[in-house]
Amino acid sequence: MRMYDIIQKKRNGNELTKEEIDFFVNGYTDGTIPDYQVSALLMAIYFQKMNKRETADLTMAMVNSGDILDLNAIEGIKVDKHSTGGVGDTTTMVLGPLVASLGIPVAKMSGRGLGHTGGTIDKLESFPGFSMDLSKDKFIENVNKHKIALAAQTGNLAPADKKLYALRDVTATVDNVSLIASSIMSKKIAAGADAIVLDVKVGEGAFMKDIESARYLAKEMVEIGKNVGRKTVAIISDMDEPLGYGIGNALEVKEAIDTLKGNGPKDLEELCLTLGSYMVVLAGKANTVDEAKELLIKNIENGKALDKFKEFVEAQGGDSLLIDNPEKLLDAKYIIPVVSKKEGYINKIHAEKVGLIAMELGAGRATKEATIDLSVGIVLHKKKGDYVRSGDILAEIYSNDKLKGDKAVEDLLNNYEIQQGENVSKTLIYDVITE
Amino acid sequence: MRMYDIIQKKRNGNELTKEEIDFFVNGYTDGTIPDYQVSALLMAIYFQKMNKRETADLTMAMVNSGDILDLNAIEGIKVDKHSTGGVGDTTTMVLGPLVASLGIPVAKMSGRGLGHTGGTIDKLESFPGFSMDLSKDKFIENVNKHKIALAAQTGNLAPADKKLYALRDVTATVDNVSLIASSIMSKKIAAGADAIVLDVKVGEGAFMKDIESARYLAKEMVEIGKNVGRKTVAIISDMDEPLGYGIGNALEVKEAIDTLKGNGPKDLEELCLTLGSYMVVLAGKANTVDEAKELLIKNIENGKALDKFKEFVEAQGGDSLLIDNPEKLLDAKYIIPVVSKKEGYINKIHAEKVGLIAMELGAGRATKEATIDLSVGIVLHKKKGDYVRSGDILAEIYSNDKLKGDKAVEDLLNNYEIQQGENVSKTLIYDVITE
Repeated sequence: MRMYDIIQKKRNGNELTKEEIDFFVNGYTDGTIPDYQVSALLMAIYFQKMNKRETADLTMAMVNSGDILDLNAIEGIKVDKHSTGGVGDTTTMVLGPLVASLGIPVAKMSGRGLGHTGGTIDKLESFPGFSMDLSKDKFIENVNKHKIALAAQTGNLAPADKKLYALRDVTATVDNVSLIASSIMSKKIAAGADAIVLDVKVGEGAFMKDIESARYLAKEMVEIGKNVGRKTVAIISDMDEPLGYGIGNALEVKEAIDTLKGNGPKDLEELCLTLGSYMVVLAGKANTVDEAKELLIKNIENGKALDKFKEFVEAQGGDSLLIDNPEKLLDAKYIIPVVSKKEGYINKIHAEKVGLIAMELGAGRATKEATIDLSVGIVLHKKKGDYVRSGDILAEIYSNDKLKGDKAVEDLLNNYEIQQGENVSKTLIYDVITE
Repeated sequence: MRMYDIIQKKRNGNELTKEEIDFFVNGYTDGTIPDYQVSALLMAIYFQKMNKRETADLTMAMVNSGDILDLNAIEGIKVDKHSTGGVGDTTTMVLGPLVASLGIPVAKMSGRGLGHTGGTIDKLESFPGFSMDLSKDKFIENVNKHKIALAAQTGNLAPADKKLYALRDVTATVDNVSLIASSIMSKKIAAGADAIVLDVKVGEGAFMKDIESARYLAKEMVEIGKNVGRKTVAIISDMDEPLGYGIGNALEVKEAIDTLKGNGPKDLEELCLTLGSYMVVLAGKANTVDEAKELLIKNIENGKALDKFKEFVEAQGGDSLLIDNPEKLLDAKYIIPVVSKKEGYINKIHAEKVGLIAMELGAGRATKEATIDLSVGIVLHKKKGDYVRSGDILAEIYSNDKLKGDKAVEDLLNNYEIQQGENVSKTLIYDVITE
């Protein structure tokens, strides 16, 4: 088999066999096939697409390129959740304890990652003593005992995906649905998921800018799941404005705690309940989504969800006292109000820009080596559809640097669109793709 | 400027500016832009094409990537000729002396190259003592004195083209008309041509398999010529069967001599007269193609063309006595007849396969290091449209190895298609593209 023939075949619009896909994925991973042939193939795939069978085969070839986590020692159906990125998205920290409180195993591997704010790992480090440094045995033991554990990612999971993603990133071949879908799914499957709930974001702050593209990507991933024996559901949710009010690490931790107590932002709560319901159904703990939702609401109301969060933090060495007093996490030196100069309905909050402002305050990492500041960020007081008058507080900037804070105030003001006239309509959940 | 943006721009179907084309050609040549980004761009070009302006800019960027031969010290308009490959094509060796005999400067740089038979350089080494090892001054002096000289290619001509071609060759991005056309034209322009006559081959033994593609390529190159100030004419000629009768080095030298004497194969003569006429017109030595043709025929008939060949060989140290006795060149150990087992019209001779048979006999080079055998090859006695009976001699194999010779007989027999019924029609010159 020759890589040249595989490139030419795809270039000519033909379907690649499983053997051909395995050949190039394995050859690229072990270095026998050079970058320049793979980038030519990726560009050919960009133009000629892959069908569902090819996409499923690519996914499994990437899964099989490295270690696959064996979580068989964990009792129950392991349902993983993945969001395709966004701004102010605290669903993971809410869903973990909430779902675990119903006895569903949450075995989460997480990285620090790059982004507007830190990863879930960074955020949980807000609790003094909290450690993700668990051996695999301890990790499994914790999941079986507490139904939830979080460990830093170890092992060589889907190395082909890492290598291919890095190449796509510099050759303008990122935005192909088959390549995006197989990249996401391969990581989840290699991490040991039995079933997967996907939160596909759509809107200005997301990778997918319109609903049709988001739906297409969602269907592609659900189809991969079906083809490789992992039940998969995808929710298409709005990311035209940030989710919740807080954008920052400690701010998002506080918001997660508020939500587990039943008094978080309505949009964050609604999305968590929707994603959570499908997780509960896939885990076999409820027959219908409505039934699942009731179970989740009950555990928020009776305090079990919050208790589970405390239990989880303590089990990994963290100080859970802060969970009762989350405002103590918010120790930024300056809290600067962002005051509206206009009157009218808020028509738009540019989500991606808001994320970048938080990052400039120090909340996120632009490079792997960067350190992040847990206490800084943004709290939105007004969101899309709210009516504001000149002088109203739109948001607050949390900063440890006065100059950066002042700049953030200006920048944020520029990213609020306020208009006279009709109010805009808002939708949070656009669609649920189950097959 | 970033290579990523250039790839993305072309991928999205947009036109690249001259600055962008210069940026990637220069960056690739000096090694600052990696192979994997260039191969992605080449594949994007394959799908999105380049327009005439981009193709002309790519051509000149490749020309400017290295040395450009300065032939200003040569008097007259230097017209170069290029054929897009083929089997049994001896036009260069005929056209050089023929055109020079009319006082038109023929300053030819040539390589040894890979192929079914050797390059013009290899073939001329049939004459003992012949040397292409000329200094640049001596080369120019010879052209001014004898109107013809041939030197081995020196200097770093169009290095970007070499590097890009090598990459295209392993990434399935060879067959794009803009890339093919700019590659050919950049080499000719870097080699100092004032005007160019192109022989675009079409048919089974050529890169272009049908007339429409050949015409498209021809127009593209003529357009480049117009855009960069080099008058260019392209002739589209048949390569469905080998040109002439001889395929091999000494065999082709003999055929060239025969043609210069006026008794060569009719198809080779016709093609040489057509290509030559346009060369004469572009060189300003005749006003019309018909007038030019008459001048060429006259110099064949009066012996001036053959005398020019002798003068040229002697000027470069070669023994020209063999030109009067070219059969002495044919010293292969075995001459084995290929005998027809069928009766009927010859419908087809698979040109490319015939070339490969000659190569297996030792006439050509598969790798740069291979040595070639000047004396071996094939002489076709019957060509397309000829009527043959069982027992007639179709061809002769010239070999220095009995086993290889016998295998060639079998192979050649399999590549003659003989059928009962109607005769096929033949066309040699399909079209002439002048603008």
